[in-house]
Amino acid sequence: MANVTIKDVAKEAGVAVETVSRVLNNRGYISQQMKDRVYEAMNRIGYTPNAFAQGLSRGKMNCIALIVPHITHPYFATVIDHLEREAEKRGQHIIIYNSNGDEQKEEYLLRLCQNSLVSGVLLFSADISADALKNLQLPIVVVERTGMANSVNIQCDNRLGGELAACYLLDKGCRDLLVLGTLNNEDMPGDSRDEEFIRICTAEHAQVHRYQASTRQYITMDYHACINQALDEHPSCDGIFATSDLIAAQVIQECSRRGRRIPQDLRLVGFDDVPLAQLLTPTLTTIRQPIDRIVSTALDAIERLGSGHKTTSDIVLPVTLVERES
Amino acid sequence: MANVTIKDVAKEAGVAVETVSRVLNNRGYISQQMKDRVYEAMNRIGYTPNAFAQGLSRGKMNCIALIVPHITHPYFATVIDHLEREAEKRGQHIIIYNSNGDEQKEEYLLRLCQNSLVSGVLLFSADISADALKNLQLPIVVVERTGMANSVNIQCDNRLGGELAACYLLDKGCRDLLVLGTLNNEDMPGDSRDEEFIRICTAEHAQVHRYQASTRQYITMDYHACINQALDEHPSCDGIFATSDLIAAQVIQECSRRGRRIPQDLRLVGFDDVPLAQLLTPTLTTIRQPIDRIVSTALDAIERLGSGHKTTSDIVLPVTLVERES
Repeated sequence: MANVTIKDVAKEAGVAVETVSRVLNNRGYISQQMKDRVYEAMNRIGYTPNAFAQGLSRGKMNCIALIVPHITHPYFATVIDHLEREAEKRGQHIIIYNSNGDEQKEEYLLRLCQNSLVSGVLLFSADISADALKNLQLPIVVVERTGMANSVNIQCDNRLGGELAACYLLDKGCRDLLVLGTLNNEDMPGDSRDEEFIRICTAEHAQVHRYQASTRQYITMDYHACINQALDEHPSCDGIFATSDLIAAQVIQECSRRGRRIPQDLRLVGFDDVPLAQLLTPTLTTIRQPIDRIVSTALDAIERLGSGHKTTSDIVLPVTLVERES
Repeated sequence: MANVTIKDVAKEAGVAVETVSRVLNNRGYISQQMKDRVYEAMNRIGYTPNAFAQGLSRGKMNCIALIVPHITHPYFATVIDHLEREAEKRGQHIIIYNSNGDEQKEEYLLRLCQNSLVSGVLLFSADISADALKNLQLPIVVVERTGMANSVNIQCDNRLGGELAACYLLDKGCRDLLVLGTLNNEDMPGDSRDEEFIRICTAEHAQVHRYQASTRQYITMDYHACINQALDEHPSCDGIFATSDLIAAQVIQECSRRGRRIPQDLRLVGFDDVPLAQLLTPTLTTIRQPIDRIVSTALDAIERLGSGHKTTSDIVLPVTLVERES
């Protein structure tokens, strides 16, 4: 079984070796019929490439570890989805850890990953200190943080996101605006979503008020208390920028309970553009994060770091506004 | 670093060895303060237990592989979340594969897992044949299938779910009912959600019509065409049983577009009780799957199979109705 090669698969399927390789690596266009033919041939002769411990002979597992503070949060569920697809294309496997946003546990998991000889780590953390990464010897990409030592930092263009949201709502005639976000312990690039939104609204002489949920609310994913306070204090607001689609879903609920119609009475813009945005009623106008590009850029960086190459350490990827019903 | 033991951690933290072990295994009640104290001690002295290749000396990785047809589908995102938590308690790590519901790829991934020496596989598949599992030599749990060879099969009590949904809607006075599900290639336990619902509605002389989305719609998670056909053909229906919360979310959208109010004009019951159910407007009355118990029962079965013990091969876990606004 161990001696069966990609050449045997090609022979069994009656196709070129290059075709088998393209199916295995999901490269270029391959018809479903061709995929089936190649997988059937592999299954018939028992070919199994790329078990994830195979790389151990080179001192590395063919594994990327993902560390996130949440798994069911729609943003991280989408990250996991894209990471699995992108890793598969590269013959990598993914291991998933939930840190529950606990900084101590994040440090522990990073050392665990180092001991496990994974190819690299993709870390989402609001709390980890720059110091904690200093002495680690494995490729690390940190998303939505800046200035972290010994790692590549990737973020979406949060400032542009705040600008797009502000311009859209002002353009629709909103003059009494709210921005709902999360209060972070550390400086996060994501804070500039709110800041830029406020800057532009203020420059345009519109009213704008900022509310920030606690870290606890972020971890429990329950923003209703913060949203209700904002709506109680500003009952006539006509435009809301929620800095995640998850917050926006809960804004829709609270507005519905108050009989405030979206978009007739007030308009709502989210952030992320995860599948949830299309499942809400009304469907959500939102700022789209390029999660697919964040993930592929992260894997590129891990590859480059792993092979000892230098790579850009701070990467910013663009966002766009997706207009739907809200 | 490799010589640092759990005893050293206990000494450094000034706690009992048993306490460190409880923190590591998430066993019993441990205060956040105690967790921090233990993790901090581990981080100070560089203790890292349980790298996932550690078990290789025993011929097994400390890894559970999860194979699902979707990752962002809210049911599977919830499964991943519970699996990560439950695996952590047991000192196991999880590797995630997306089969895209492709039977050939599922077979391929199973052989890959066998070659990778994982402790076991948790497989969600609508298509895999009983034959495909026959010759594999690793612990396999298949969820929501029955009669699969060489594996443990776990399902929720789908029949009870259909019954609870029917009784609830009839009790609320609904007499013109729809059930919306997915048409499967293979016999699936999930089919009895619809069947039992129809049986009870018919026995109570209520009108009931069944609509089934295609496998293609299931994979793309877009049920709007099927829902619109059902609502076009039964404009006066007063109760809908959607066999997943994801379908229910899209029913809410289509009803809103038609100006049909939930629950005033018609009532809606979902299935799964994933976080999405609480994010919809109105919040969703649904049948709760015990996803936490499905996952822990699966890991129990993998442990028993791995140590050569016999175990029950068909397990059915109960469901409950959760009443919300719909």
